[in-house]
Amino acid sequence: MAYRPPVREHRFLLGEVLQIEQYNNLPGFAEVSMDLVDQILDEAARFAAEVLDPLNPVGDKHGCRWSDDGSVTTPPGFKDAYRKLVEGGWPALGADPAFGGQGLPAVVGLAFNEMSSAANMAFSMYPGLTHGAYSAIAAGGSDDQKALYLPKLASGEWGGTMNLTEPQCGTDLGLLRTKAVPVGDGSYKISGQKIWISSGEHDLADNIIHLVLARIEGAPAGVRGISLFIVPKFIPDADGKPGVRNQVSCAGLEEKMGIHGNATCVMIHDEATGWLVGEENRGLALMFVMMNEARLGVALQGLAQGEAAYQAAADFARERLQGRALTGPVNPDGPADPIIVHPDVRRLLMDSRAVLEAGRALLFWTALHGDLAHVHPDSAVRQKGSDYMGLLTPVLKAYLTDRGFQICSDALQVHGGSGFTEHFQASQRLRDTRITLIYEGTNGVQALDLVGRKLAANGGRAVMTFAAEIDAFVEAHQGEAATADFVTALAGVKAQLQEATFWLMQNGLTNPDNAAASSTDYLSLFALTGLAYMWAIIARIAQAKVEAGDPDPFYANKLAVGRYFLARVLPDAGARLAKVKTGAATVMALPAEAF
Amino acid sequence: MAYRPPVREHRFLLGEVLQIEQYNNLPGFAEVSMDLVDQILDEAARFAAEVLDPLNPVGDKHGCRWSDDGSVTTPPGFKDAYRKLVEGGWPALGADPAFGGQGLPAVVGLAFNEMSSAANMAFSMYPGLTHGAYSAIAAGGSDDQKALYLPKLASGEWGGTMNLTEPQCGTDLGLLRTKAVPVGDGSYKISGQKIWISSGEHDLADNIIHLVLARIEGAPAGVRGISLFIVPKFIPDADGKPGVRNQVSCAGLEEKMGIHGNATCVMIHDEATGWLVGEENRGLALMFVMMNEARLGVALQGLAQGEAAYQAAADFARERLQGRALTGPVNPDGPADPIIVHPDVRRLLMDSRAVLEAGRALLFWTALHGDLAHVHPDSAVRQKGSDYMGLLTPVLKAYLTDRGFQICSDALQVHGGSGFTEHFQASQRLRDTRITLIYEGTNGVQALDLVGRKLAANGGRAVMTFAAEIDAFVEAHQGEAATADFVTALAGVKAQLQEATFWLMQNGLTNPDNAAASSTDYLSLFALTGLAYMWAIIARIAQAKVEAGDPDPFYANKLAVGRYFLARVLPDAGARLAKVKTGAATVMALPAEAF
Repeated sequence: MAYRPPVREHRFLLGEVLQIEQYNNLPGFAEVSMDLVDQILDEAARFAAEVLDPLNPVGDKHGCRWSDDGSVTTPPGFKDAYRKLVEGGWPALGADPAFGGQGLPAVVGLAFNEMSSAANMAFSMYPGLTHGAYSAIAAGGSDDQKALYLPKLASGEWGGTMNLTEPQCGTDLGLLRTKAVPVGDGSYKISGQKIWISSGEHDLADNIIHLVLARIEGAPAGVRGISLFIVPKFIPDADGKPGVRNQVSCAGLEEKMGIHGNATCVMIHDEATGWLVGEENRGLALMFVMMNEARLGVALQGLAQGEAAYQAAADFARERLQGRALTGPVNPDGPADPIIVHPDVRRLLMDSRAVLEAGRALLFWTALHGDLAHVHPDSAVRQKGSDYMGLLTPVLKAYLTDRGFQICSDALQVHGGSGFTEHFQASQRLRDTRITLIYEGTNGVQALDLVGRKLAANGGRAVMTFAAEIDAFVEAHQGEAATADFVTALAGVKAQLQEATFWLMQNGLTNPDNAAASSTDYLSLFALTGLAYMWAIIARIAQAKVEAGDPDPFYANKLAVGRYFLARVLPDAGARLAKVKTGAATVMALPAEAF
Repeated sequence: MAYRPPVREHRFLLGEVLQIEQYNNLPGFAEVSMDLVDQILDEAARFAAEVLDPLNPVGDKHGCRWSDDGSVTTPPGFKDAYRKLVEGGWPALGADPAFGGQGLPAVVGLAFNEMSSAANMAFSMYPGLTHGAYSAIAAGGSDDQKALYLPKLASGEWGGTMNLTEPQCGTDLGLLRTKAVPVGDGSYKISGQKIWISSGEHDLADNIIHLVLARIEGAPAGVRGISLFIVPKFIPDADGKPGVRNQVSCAGLEEKMGIHGNATCVMIHDEATGWLVGEENRGLALMFVMMNEARLGVALQGLAQGEAAYQAAADFARERLQGRALTGPVNPDGPADPIIVHPDVRRLLMDSRAVLEAGRALLFWTALHGDLAHVHPDSAVRQKGSDYMGLLTPVLKAYLTDRGFQICSDALQVHGGSGFTEHFQASQRLRDTRITLIYEGTNGVQALDLVGRKLAANGGRAVMTFAAEIDAFVEAHQGEAATADFVTALAGVKAQLQEATFWLMQNGLTNPDNAAASSTDYLSLFALTGLAYMWAIIARIAQAKVEAGDPDPFYANKLAVGRYFLARVLPDAGARLAKVKTGAATVMALPAEAF
């Protein structure tokens, strides 16, 4: 069965969990009534299900084709779908009205992005990277640059890319070699080779705006000598239309395990004309504007693929007849029972849901804080919003992609032998999702970002605020008998997280390897705490609905999935804590040559 | 860098851990000196590294080609490698000398099988399935059938297959429809469609002997009406040479996620001529002779792919320069340090080793018990060997393939973006290995086999024997200070396993869903106990060598990896136990229509 966008989940999160209408007094939120949300969700669901989803296997099988002239042809149907995307105004949802955008909060756009990414991840990367380029220019571009580029990028009429990686330089951008030579007229000649450039060349848009990291001649070595440039595929003419072809070209496509429908390009800049964005040698900071946004986007990809994979597995499990329920046939007139009767199949499905539903809540909750960081009048709220975005972005990126991949693998497993064939999409989901654990900073880099930077920033303010918020929640709600198990479990895992945090503070300073060696387990423990918090919030809402006699089984199901989380997912927290506290000793015990 | 067969590991296991020379008085073991073992290991390593390993990416990229005439062409080089395999006598290593085999214990052949499977899993499945067919005929065939088929299958001159699965019938063989009609001359006409038949058709061998499950007309419904047949591709003539072409043909190949070099066939039996093996309606028991052997073989595939993937990741981590060690540069004259300095990269590599080294030990230890079950003069030893084989086969199959896949994924992760491209073999390892969690019984089926059959068999004799053996070990060695941490940890996890076992006994009888819902977590806890036992054994041997001043760093490294296991892998046992004890309640809480 096809992917079914989880409109009901989104409506629940935006309307009941985040209660988005309460922010009606804030810029951008003014028009965000639940009526509007419903309209957007329904339209988004239709577009994802009807336009993007059918093209997903097409993209996987055809892939992108590179020609000798450097052009790239996207899979059949992609061009038409892209035209519909632009016509529908989807890329402009969250963009600034000053540049033709609709100015909606990011948290609302997230719902569309999830659906779009679930329906067709490879396709959705084209507008996704465009939005990153939009954000970098919006953050650091001159007024002229904004006026020239932002409207085209906001609408999706032009595409955008991030040109960071070089063969010798991935995570370690200090090794970057691409050089920029000032011409004297304000422009630069950019030369160098970039690899793994997603959407680097394609036939979907009239122009492609590359955001390129390069080193201006004579700049300092390392990361302090890196600047950011705009390098358009076609240099805009006086009317702002695509003009002369620039000396940037695609030298080939990468053969990859998945996301075949997205062109992963080797890009050659051969004295290409570029313009500096922001200040000289300050390119990394601007690139991180794109990067941080992209990291939350990658977290969403992990979630989205997990959701789609879960749905397909649930469909398969309801339809495939094999064996009998241990407690007696449920389909006695048929040749066998559907495999969803088997507890170990259920376990895989429940595990997926327990993580997906709370993971989505945590992602949306964090995105709302990101919105508030920009528009709330109270500086304390803005600070908290910004702190939470910083703190939770690496947690969400690493945890939701790790688990998203696991969910895709579990979904394939539910399919049995069918899952290993390319007849079902289970294999594609698994193969597509695998990149999310790597790009925009590997999950190991996320864990290091969390323990090495985000925890310590501002004297630990973000993590202490988060802990205090949970304490206050526990204090306020521990007396509520019907959901006491959720609140008690939350208090428990929060105490474990606190113990781990203290351990890192005490032992990470004396030996930074201790923090690094424990970073991934710490990040998982952090995520489990965040999920437990979301489940406690969700459970209270659901319980109130159930007690009020609401006939929608949605609410009782939420309580059931939440209790599965407490029984079957949360016990991992103790193991994570135990591992954190062993530090680097055993991890670093072997000499490098012993591997 | 290429795959390096782990000869040192095999020599350590066979010589020092299992002390295989002590069985010199047993049939088959008589000639197994460590000199012979060394010779076999060196030859096997050469064959795997030089002949099979280079063909691995070739097989992935080319795949098998099916032609309209039903023929299948294997990837370039496979035919030549297969000829060398047969000429080298490798398939005959463990076969009965009465049929041209070398009669060596299975545990010795395991080392070759691991190397062969690691170097080229898709290729190694051709002889692997042949050996399964050999075993089924050896177990249930008539003397004439043995004389006709076993020498050809033992040598590999002819290939073999298992024809079980049909579109409506995978795990649930009771749904099988392929029918067999007696002709009257002792033969049958077999008709039906079989799918997912590995090595079902190819160009490597002069003949292919299909072992086919079918239902004799008028047989009872369900699993009690299934018989096993020999259906040769070419019916042997009076001289035992391939004669008339039989009415069994390959109607197409499956498009798969991995193992592209192995032909996964749709087989059509159109009144094909077949001969009954063993008794009417008793085919399933014979098929399980093949199946159980195959399950241990699949466990070995998971281990083998994990080992090869780990090696490639370690090589990459030593060579890729990116970033600096947190504790100060180790390659100050280079542009960056190798990424193996980063604790989170080390964690991935150490995790892999901690599981691979003890997993291999447990697999070899179990295989030795399987050998003893056949040849030991003491019936108590035979019974114990047979009990352990039954008990540990599902544990090894599920755990080593789950972890093997995880190790392949972690190895891909160490490669960063390179791992997602098809330029490195990391993607192929991941894709190839994914099938091992599914075929020969999904890992969920293994877990159910463990808790539903193997635990309860003979009043729980096998698990009680295993527990008593560990108790005796702990009792004997707990006073040894240098390795007390290993023995204490073993006692701890064994107590957790016992608690889980009691819980299953008490709660699985009242509600079988409780046992099924907890089966996978129980299986993991069982595996962790087995690995902890192996690490304790290995640690004692290594410690003695270190204390004796042995200059080989191999032994000190074993202690280091073992202590990583205690600190960083074993803590999962507590989470597994906690999950087991929650039973089916939360797993089965939702109605089927809520998924």
